[in-house]
Amino acid sequence: MMKESGTTAGGDLLIVDVTAITMDARGSVCPDAAIAVQGGEIAYVGPARELPADLAGLPVYHGKGRVAIPGLVNAHTHAAMTLLRGYADDLALQEWLTTMIFPAEAKLTAEDVYWGTLLACAEMIRSGTTCFADMYFFMDAAAEAVDASGIRASLSVGMTSFGDAAQKLSDALDFCRRWNGAAGGRITTMLAPHAPYTCSPEFIGDVIAEARRAELCLHTHLSETVREVQQAQAEWGKSPIQHFESLGVFELPVLAAHCVVVDAQDIEIMAKHDVRVAHNPGSNMKLASGVAPVPTMLSRGVVVGLGTDGAASNNNLDMIEEMRFAGLLQKVHAGDPTALPAGECLRMATMGSARCLRLESAIGSLEPGKKADIVLLDLDMPNMEPALPERLVSHLVYSACGLNVSTVLVDGRILLDDGCLVTIDAEKVAREIRRRAASLAQ
Amino acid sequence: MMKESGTTAGGDLLIVDVTAITMDARGSVCPDAAIAVQGGEIAYVGPARELPADLAGLPVYHGKGRVAIPGLVNAHTHAAMTLLRGYADDLALQEWLTTMIFPAEAKLTAEDVYWGTLLACAEMIRSGTTCFADMYFFMDAAAEAVDASGIRASLSVGMTSFGDAAQKLSDALDFCRRWNGAAGGRITTMLAPHAPYTCSPEFIGDVIAEARRAELCLHTHLSETVREVQQAQAEWGKSPIQHFESLGVFELPVLAAHCVVVDAQDIEIMAKHDVRVAHNPGSNMKLASGVAPVPTMLSRGVVVGLGTDGAASNNNLDMIEEMRFAGLLQKVHAGDPTALPAGECLRMATMGSARCLRLESAIGSLEPGKKADIVLLDLDMPNMEPALPERLVSHLVYSACGLNVSTVLVDGRILLDDGCLVTIDAEKVAREIRRRAASLAQ
Repeated sequence: MMKESGTTAGGDLLIVDVTAITMDARGSVCPDAAIAVQGGEIAYVGPARELPADLAGLPVYHGKGRVAIPGLVNAHTHAAMTLLRGYADDLALQEWLTTMIFPAEAKLTAEDVYWGTLLACAEMIRSGTTCFADMYFFMDAAAEAVDASGIRASLSVGMTSFGDAAQKLSDALDFCRRWNGAAGGRITTMLAPHAPYTCSPEFIGDVIAEARRAELCLHTHLSETVREVQQAQAEWGKSPIQHFESLGVFELPVLAAHCVVVDAQDIEIMAKHDVRVAHNPGSNMKLASGVAPVPTMLSRGVVVGLGTDGAASNNNLDMIEEMRFAGLLQKVHAGDPTALPAGECLRMATMGSARCLRLESAIGSLEPGKKADIVLLDLDMPNMEPALPERLVSHLVYSACGLNVSTVLVDGRILLDDGCLVTIDAEKVAREIRRRAASLAQ
Repeated sequence: MMKESGTTAGGDLLIVDVTAITMDARGSVCPDAAIAVQGGEIAYVGPARELPADLAGLPVYHGKGRVAIPGLVNAHTHAAMTLLRGYADDLALQEWLTTMIFPAEAKLTAEDVYWGTLLACAEMIRSGTTCFADMYFFMDAAAEAVDASGIRASLSVGMTSFGDAAQKLSDALDFCRRWNGAAGGRITTMLAPHAPYTCSPEFIGDVIAEARRAELCLHTHLSETVREVQQAQAEWGKSPIQHFESLGVFELPVLAAHCVVVDAQDIEIMAKHDVRVAHNPGSNMKLASGVAPVPTMLSRGVVVGLGTDGAASNNNLDMIEEMRFAGLLQKVHAGDPTALPAGECLRMATMGSARCLRLESAIGSLEPGKKADIVLLDLDMPNMEPALPERLVSHLVYSACGLNVSTVLVDGRILLDDGCLVTIDAEKVAREIRRRAASLAQ
């Protein structure tokens, strides 16, 4: 069943007076650019003076000298955890999970997940993210929030093999059937076995069979902590990645979040099977999980995107900040200021994450034929000066923050206009969130 | 000579409808607070219902439900380096310095420093910083920018012993005489021997003698890199901190930036002499200098504040982000998510930095009798939700960014009003900065 949505309307417009950072193969920075949008797709991006005549009549959206980038793609989050932002910090991982997060999550209702996800959508749109990969529960409610907000998302029901695993898998497959391709194609779906340590080998086998049958990709957590790797070695005599390989998981397209504690052999396995990695440096720092060997992964040809993880362990969903975390963490860890330069961080947050979600043919760069998921950032803010074209990639990665974003389009539809959310009633969301968060924390 | 300024006017006003995070000894979070300002100083902060009757008639400034914190204090920067933001990144330290930064700095004029510092003041005010410690050159121009902007600063001329060291020291002393206590007391001054590796022992001796005579504190760089420590060991058979101790530097009040590569003995020396440390995690990460042992320093009683360093190595002057860097870097480095909790990070950025600048009796907390250097942050932004009082310190440190700041007061005077700079013509600054930065880069 394909869910129809009233909120999708592909825009036709001509964005003028912008500097375009396209993130296409040439990686060009184009000052004095125009971007034409037709039917929700990019029809032209390049020098304004070379705009084809047949596109010159589109309704004009004035870029006011701003910089245009592809919408950022958050390759791993648990959106509704915005409700738990600031609820529990600075605790040891097990205490954090077992005494705070799990008990609060046990109280969550579908309505909570709707409002928590809608807040996450508001926050992501406000900070320049146009698409995200989500793994949580009550995902129908999450999908409703995505639909209502106008953002794009790849949604998956997180599954463990505790309890009635067969029912969970069946429910998750139903969810995928209901929502894959919904909201005018903005919603796609994956199957999400939570992690090697929460899913039995038998359950993983069932998930693989069903995913193959339904032609679904997998979204999972993998090799996040030393403890996880030690447990895997103790239980299976293998690293989590070797374990998943032996189960045949990587014969399917896989998005693997974290991959912090991995060795050379693990990386070869990921490269061989084209396992795509969502790197979450903010969460890895805050939870003290460690430092993923991103430069090594990239050098071995592994696709790496960027994610924020949930707001309980980040604590925001700002992908601009996440780019900065990625670059700075590698530099200080390697003792090498040349590690993971700015352009690489921006590539991870755009094309890298798009490839993680298997949406690289549709999003991740400003190119004709791709979806018009476009973000404009203000340059007339002190932290963006000197706003010279050749410095803009550096400013984006090393100085900007999400609130420098002024305008956001998805499918050519304006979701943020001069800093104002268009599709979401922020005041209403705030009222609901404060009430529900206070109740969950009791 | 005390320079008089026309730009200082202590405000009288009553801020109502705020949640006050005072950072006083009790560290209280006070919802439904009022803050009374008289003659540029705080006359009352606490529950609105307990406001003394004689203060109730002050002109009301409506806090709109925002959170009020003490103005953030940037304990170490080179303000005018905003001109070089994004000019050179992702390079090895020596290449960065010798092929990019030093040649560009050699071209700087006093006018460049004025505009670069004014941009820095704009950026700091915009992001909630009300006071900063600056070390650079053409400092009269920097002081003029501080005066014009209304911000508070401790200014120092960076000195090396290369060339005519005696003249440099004499000029720096003249600068201190001209500006100490200027701008209605907003400007204080220090003497700044740049670093152990750029100042000969003889020159350090002269600086100490003059600083003692003029009752000036010292501002220096200390133990920033492994290379610096190795050179010190090779040249003097001592660590940089042991070397400075042996020269008598620490018999004066000292603000030491960085202190990244320090051992237990170094920390004992710092504690013994009350050397106050400006920790710059963003710069230390970007330049791959390493991780300062901040929790150990704090446990030994060393005063630690937070600084951004210059915008060529950060690349912004956002102290809210710096708090986050401080916390996350310690956690991932120690493998311990309990390291440097949120409240400690906020304390470092307020009282810690105030103590670094030896201004702890005047600023750093919201307390009656202190200067009315006050910052209000918007709570009706998605990244600040759920905006429950008990979560605000976490949101400030782990989720906010400088652009969440809406209102900034220094000496009770409004410098930022609902996100708009009051004292600085941002458009004019941008024009000057773009022109000058382009010229420096040629």
